[in-house]
Amino acid sequence: MKILVDAMGGDNAPLEIIKGSIQAHNEYGVDIILVGQEDVIKSVSDENNLDISDFTVVNASEVIATDEEADSVLKKKTDSSMSVALKMLSQGEGDAFVSAGNSGALCVGGTLIAKRIRGIKRPGFAPILPHFGGGCFMLIDAGANLETRPEMILQYAVMGSAYMKNVMKVDNPRVGLINVGAEEHKGMELHHKTFELLKNADINFIGNVEGRDLPYGNCDVAVCDGFTGNVVLKTYEGTAKAIMGKVKELFSKNAKSKLAAALVMGDLKKMVKEFDYNEYGGAPIMGTLKPVFKAHGSAKAKTFKNAVRLTKEYVEADVINEITNALK
Amino acid sequence: MKILVDAMGGDNAPLEIIKGSIQAHNEYGVDIILVGQEDVIKSVSDENNLDISDFTVVNASEVIATDEEADSVLKKKTDSSMSVALKMLSQGEGDAFVSAGNSGALCVGGTLIAKRIRGIKRPGFAPILPHFGGGCFMLIDAGANLETRPEMILQYAVMGSAYMKNVMKVDNPRVGLINVGAEEHKGMELHHKTFELLKNADINFIGNVEGRDLPYGNCDVAVCDGFTGNVVLKTYEGTAKAIMGKVKELFSKNAKSKLAAALVMGDLKKMVKEFDYNEYGGAPIMGTLKPVFKAHGSAKAKTFKNAVRLTKEYVEADVINEITNALK
Repeated sequence: MKILVDAMGGDNAPLEIIKGSIQAHNEYGVDIILVGQEDVIKSVSDENNLDISDFTVVNASEVIATDEEADSVLKKKTDSSMSVALKMLSQGEGDAFVSAGNSGALCVGGTLIAKRIRGIKRPGFAPILPHFGGGCFMLIDAGANLETRPEMILQYAVMGSAYMKNVMKVDNPRVGLINVGAEEHKGMELHHKTFELLKNADINFIGNVEGRDLPYGNCDVAVCDGFTGNVVLKTYEGTAKAIMGKVKELFSKNAKSKLAAALVMGDLKKMVKEFDYNEYGGAPIMGTLKPVFKAHGSAKAKTFKNAVRLTKEYVEADVINEITNALK
Repeated sequence: MKILVDAMGGDNAPLEIIKGSIQAHNEYGVDIILVGQEDVIKSVSDENNLDISDFTVVNASEVIATDEEADSVLKKKTDSSMSVALKMLSQGEGDAFVSAGNSGALCVGGTLIAKRIRGIKRPGFAPILPHFGGGCFMLIDAGANLETRPEMILQYAVMGSAYMKNVMKVDNPRVGLINVGAEEHKGMELHHKTFELLKNADINFIGNVEGRDLPYGNCDVAVCDGFTGNVVLKTYEGTAKAIMGKVKELFSKNAKSKLAAALVMGDLKKMVKEFDYNEYGGAPIMGTLKPVFKAHGSAKAKTFKNAVRLTKEYVEADVINEITNALK
């Protein structure tokens, strides 16, 4: 299997991306095609004694920054690592693409360069998030598409179910619609119409879910419009990060608190790990014709390696074929 | 000052509501009018040796449950504690109203029975939330009104600023628009138009804010449409509660972890307190002609007492007059 890697995307590119790719290659046996500024990739590898002799390196002269406009992937920076890799993906020169770069650009490029699955109206950005039940859930759409219609959310539900079942091995994934209350009549016209569609679809729809249920893992796929999903994603991760930061501060204040930390170290590590998104590695862009996977922007080698593993499983599980069949 | 109290509203009514009212009366010197089922109020007070001889008790035969339709306050249950108290408020038989009952019903009843400030299009449900900067911020609207127009959000910004300045004593409150990114062009038409209005208003508008900024206290008033606000509120509180629960579990597991807890007790208590919504007591319904205040549904005596204090300060600070003048 050939995985295209955006060597220039993310806060820690290219060093941590190259390291993670090497780890993934060694552990999972995937072939890696590094796409990016060839001279930078080679000099960083040399300086850090990283052996990339097994990899193909494809030159792309430009880099899309994290704060750049999403459509720069299409117009301004057509020789960026992301654009070049997506073109290679669409031409069959790789089985999947992983990037820790600009999410917006990846959604736009995934949709318009790598192309959509026939029948899919809008691909969805679908982060896998940890919950406190000890597992994870998919949030879709978390911002690929802000203006959302009910039939798009139905497709998110179908795609999310296929991913969670085949890649995350969740039996009969529970789909919840994010809303302002549990009752069917809650929300606006968008939610009423979507509820009706989900109720009648061939998925395991459990009804409306609320933001306060998500940390307890009450569903496996949480669907919503892209604006709501993006706000949920950032509030969820931001609040968790803020509190975890406070807990860390609490334990590292002085000798007494460090002793306390030592006493509960095992459980503390377990708790931090349970809520560590790095364990899950990122977010597939659901709905593209070939797997496109977004690794966390702050990914270091281990997280990026996990993202490559999930991408490999995404290819192997034949999720895209299952989605194609579900839409027939 | 006469404060009308919904004796029957909330998970712990009437006992904790009566207790909290007594504490508020003793500490803040406010007069209390308890509205609710008179026989229940009297028997619960007797059984618990609570002296309510200083209070006026007004009978209302019905109770609106937490899961009841919001408009039951107007139609089905016109002799409920909430309806009766709101009618008394609108007729000048009290200076303000506090309830720990059904939020939706309180928003509807506040709007249509207690009436709106002249010029206010839609009152907003405006919880005061703690953040990790050691203070709090107002989120408005958190669900009173789901279909929101830009001029309504502008009014939320004006009302929220008046409240935070006059009641919470925040100098020149910073107003942020909840959006999917910091840049001005982010979001949908609603956000673009609202941004334009906020930019030109006589408030301290700091631009777009994201869910991940809120726990760090980057703004004093976070404005948005009611759907988004409700989702943010529940995700924010739910995630915080889930993690705090895990921390508590961690410390109470065994003798070793209890020893650890003892070692960091002071800081642990401080952290829990910093993020404890009970310290803030609840949410004003902003835009009603007289102060209507929602205490947390799970309020016990102390929280309810705090809610009465905030309500008293809401009356004294003359916020409604300031809003009225700002709209002229």
